[in-house]
Amino acid sequence: MTGSLTIAGLGPGDTALITPEVSTALAEATDVLGYAAYVARVGPREGLRLHPSDNRMELQRAGEALKLAAEGRNVVVVSSGDPGVFAMAAAVFEALEDAPELQDLSIRVLPGVTAMLAAAARAGAPLGHDFCAINLSDNLKPWTVIEKRLRLAAEADFAIAIYNPRSTSRPDGLARALEILGNAGCADRTIIFARAVTTPKERIETMSLREARPEMADMTTLVIVGNSATRRIGRWVYAPRRAS
Amino acid sequence: MTGSLTIAGLGPGDTALITPEVSTALAEATDVLGYAAYVARVGPREGLRLHPSDNRMELQRAGEALKLAAEGRNVVVVSSGDPGVFAMAAAVFEALEDAPELQDLSIRVLPGVTAMLAAAARAGAPLGHDFCAINLSDNLKPWTVIEKRLRLAAEADFAIAIYNPRSTSRPDGLARALEILGNAGCADRTIIFARAVTTPKERIETMSLREARPEMADMTTLVIVGNSATRRIGRWVYAPRRAS
Repeated sequence: MTGSLTIAGLGPGDTALITPEVSTALAEATDVLGYAAYVARVGPREGLRLHPSDNRMELQRAGEALKLAAEGRNVVVVSSGDPGVFAMAAAVFEALEDAPELQDLSIRVLPGVTAMLAAAARAGAPLGHDFCAINLSDNLKPWTVIEKRLRLAAEADFAIAIYNPRSTSRPDGLARALEILGNAGCADRTIIFARAVTTPKERIETMSLREARPEMADMTTLVIVGNSATRRIGRWVYAPRRAS
Repeated sequence: MTGSLTIAGLGPGDTALITPEVSTALAEATDVLGYAAYVARVGPREGLRLHPSDNRMELQRAGEALKLAAEGRNVVVVSSGDPGVFAMAAAVFEALEDAPELQDLSIRVLPGVTAMLAAAARAGAPLGHDFCAINLSDNLKPWTVIEKRLRLAAEADFAIAIYNPRSTSRPDGLARALEILGNAGCADRTIIFARAVTTPKERIETMSLREARPEMADMTTLVIVGNSATRRIGRWVYAPRRAS
């Protein structure tokens, strides 16, 4: 009996943004593992075991998924957005590295629409020119690394997608990031707070960085800071194809 | 008669990666515009006019799409991958800025799976930590800007997704980028050449940056340079969740 492990992205929230590839994988799964809020997006079905777990349990969850697959189950680990962007895929490969006896297991990663792409689409095209993505909540990453990356991203004039701007692990991360970017010459840049994108609670707010306040973001918000050439037309924000 | 303009991403190639949202938009369209190779991915159907155009015609195509929508047509502009990442969305908003009389037009951007996410998924999870995306082919962007961004991205220890590494507009771009990154201390980093991802011609090659040669990339290749902590296990490449 040969099992398999699929690491799949559910997209930002709307079921119309789940790729058919991922829907097929879920239809064929015997076991679905993930953070409880994401597992809840997978409908129950006869023959399917759901394994919801806590948000901070990535490595344990990855190990459990590998174990179930090795036992012959067809396992899908779900992430919101894309599983390779600040999500479960890295944790699974970390667990795999610690389990050399499982390295011939059938593993697939199925991409999804990550939050910054959905947020950018709602706002216009703020990521139409070179950009970077920085995760503020990752508590395995020292704050000095984040600070350095924010400064260099400002100097490079990248548009900057900020994932997890407000998290329990780093509640003051966004306040500090806004201050760093302001001091790095980005006070007049356009900033977008994209909350709960593609869900009924969606709200998009656009302003200059100097007007931004950390409490404008919650746990479901993705923040995009435009590059220095970013323009606004009515409700739309876009990065011109010409370099700033 | 009210028209609409939808800017939609077809994903990297495989139809199983086109979101249902985009499929619905295509089913309701009266007109589809885009680069010929992408329009060819949309099946012909009665009542649907296909408007293929040349690769370098972004702004003219955007203007034509706005004009058709203003005439009452349901227009879809298609891009490969995600329309907001080095693709048509920015060109449409640029054209819209030049046409103030059309700024009340019904416009939507529908996100898609951009090439770097599909390439990363095939390789493992090289974008599991902070990363950036740089387009080498954009001939509206001076090379000095690209060079500066590559140097700062190396210093920030971002994983780096390189779009359009070999283009007719900048055939030597990748050779110069590899040299810049090598000189910036990245010679031992892992590099992934992901060619024609999710199509029958897909080929994934992984090596150290010092072993990479520009001719390993063609027009359909997406290149990912790992960060300094990136690890390989068998055929998989991943960015550990811990910072380098």
